[in-house]
Amino acid sequence: MRETAIGIDIGGTFTKFGLTDVEGNVLMEGSIPTYTHKEIKSFLDALSQAINESLDELNEPIEILGVGIGAPNGNYYKGTIEHAPNLHWKGIVPFIDMFKEYFDLPMVLTNDANAAAIGEKVFGGAKDMDDFIVITLGTGLGSGLVTRGKLIYGHDGLAGELGHTNVYPDGRECNCGKRGCLETYASASGIKRTVFKLLATNNVDTPLRTYTYESLTSKKITEMALEGDPIALEAYTYTSDILGLKLADAAAVTSPQAIFLFGGLAKAGDILVEATKKSFNEYLYPGYKGKIEIRLSDLMDRNAAVLGASALVWSEIAHSESIRVPQQARVV
Amino acid sequence: MRETAIGIDIGGTFTKFGLTDVEGNVLMEGSIPTYTHKEIKSFLDALSQAINESLDELNEPIEILGVGIGAPNGNYYKGTIEHAPNLHWKGIVPFIDMFKEYFDLPMVLTNDANAAAIGEKVFGGAKDMDDFIVITLGTGLGSGLVTRGKLIYGHDGLAGELGHTNVYPDGRECNCGKRGCLETYASASGIKRTVFKLLATNNVDTPLRTYTYESLTSKKITEMALEGDPIALEAYTYTSDILGLKLADAAAVTSPQAIFLFGGLAKAGDILVEATKKSFNEYLYPGYKGKIEIRLSDLMDRNAAVLGASALVWSEIAHSESIRVPQQARVV
Repeated sequence: MRETAIGIDIGGTFTKFGLTDVEGNVLMEGSIPTYTHKEIKSFLDALSQAINESLDELNEPIEILGVGIGAPNGNYYKGTIEHAPNLHWKGIVPFIDMFKEYFDLPMVLTNDANAAAIGEKVFGGAKDMDDFIVITLGTGLGSGLVTRGKLIYGHDGLAGELGHTNVYPDGRECNCGKRGCLETYASASGIKRTVFKLLATNNVDTPLRTYTYESLTSKKITEMALEGDPIALEAYTYTSDILGLKLADAAAVTSPQAIFLFGGLAKAGDILVEATKKSFNEYLYPGYKGKIEIRLSDLMDRNAAVLGASALVWSEIAHSESIRVPQQARVV
Repeated sequence: MRETAIGIDIGGTFTKFGLTDVEGNVLMEGSIPTYTHKEIKSFLDALSQAINESLDELNEPIEILGVGIGAPNGNYYKGTIEHAPNLHWKGIVPFIDMFKEYFDLPMVLTNDANAAAIGEKVFGGAKDMDDFIVITLGTGLGSGLVTRGKLIYGHDGLAGELGHTNVYPDGRECNCGKRGCLETYASASGIKRTVFKLLATNNVDTPLRTYTYESLTSKKITEMALEGDPIALEAYTYTSDILGLKLADAAAVTSPQAIFLFGGLAKAGDILVEATKKSFNEYLYPGYKGKIEIRLSDLMDRNAAVLGASALVWSEIAHSESIRVPQQARVV
């Protein structure tokens, strides 16, 4: 019987789920909308139903070792989702406690960037590393920092908020209530803000002038950068300069072997990576020079959300023989 | 027979040593000049002789469990001192390998700020904490970051260089070769630079105008701040603003329970701590607010250098029964 793990990645818009084996094969996958469920109970009903339907369609016997959940503002210690600005469910949601009523399986929950970091270690480019950082460049900027082979969770389970380190004390307004946070520059929303700033300060002709702020996406900016649009390229340079500087700061804290870049903005490939490397090495403490790699995540073209979330099970649950639970334990 | 540990703290000017027991009692202590020994061999000869002479004067039988060494640019993994700018011995000094020829005892070496952090955990205010940061405000700014109860060493043993995170990309020249590093602002040398900047931009009357750059010490600035001198106080405010901002960045990485301030500048007490707290809380990620303490090190008025270095033994060597070595193993 093949041993498997369920991975669930909760995003503001969609929640993806899937089943992986220890080699990173995805046996089934699916998704449900997140934002339509104003109540957590209704969301959990829909999610468990979708997962069970997908499991029923599997045509091989499996054993499920556990459930890994990546969620914005996920608290590893408590299994809760706390004050997530992009989710409807306000306050502190006791996610694992509630989800255990649907699946009687070992569960582990952490924030989405931490899940990405564990995914990189279990299935990606960090397999042989004990000290590395994964940066997820999505709507915001998430970070998972691994040292001595383990995630840094801090005293409250909420460590790893590089997106909220400060670039400019009086900089751009951030959703978190502060100003000048890194994610207001280096993220999908950040690069859009930068394009609009550049459109205001330059006279360069570009099709980017035909977009409203609402209609412009970072995906479009990335496409145009790859096509050579000067404003899109300059926006990437500006983003990379700031990202490289703040990654040099982070490196001075944890001295990682590598920093992996992941997410939509990373799809620009070398345009992002080379410029970030240049800035990073300019600001890096000389004692670290030449020792720290900056590269794209190995999970870029794979089902990273599901792999990352399920990797939590392979990393933290599957190793303890004693807590393996047979599939029959699953309840509907 | 009382169990003891030797602690050695190597500074640019003096090297302090001492013998502690597990409760932090200092049974003997001493020091030798560091800077007069241009060759490491001559330094080790003098150091071992001074330690052995002090040990011979003890009037109780003891067992020495090991030697802990705090050194600038100390590499924990390799037991080396690497390219320390304030020491005569250039390149990579295989300190432990060489020192084992004098004392046949288990040895552990790390950088001085890491030793201070372990000292805080073994003997100071972090006894019950697994996640905290110690900042040493000496000539430079050192940092020891503890997570899950262990120091963050990174992939190369050289993590924890908060002093070289960036405040202003085009800021003050740093000894490391970069510009704008935190330690060019928040350190003994940094606050002196700030006083000279304030003397240039203000007309305020102050005895600080009678000092040359060479003759002014941070100790004097601290004394004058405690006496209410407006320029000295403003220098502390400026320093604390920057320190608080960068500590908020560090907190976003490791989410510590507390940050301990240590060293000469910390002798200003509340003048430093309260202003740093204010700035720290202004820039702190809202998710951490109210959860992270900033306070003075509990070792401020004790023999912190020796306690910190010897704490390495209590933390890393003394727990392994198998490697306890009787005092007779000591060779002269």
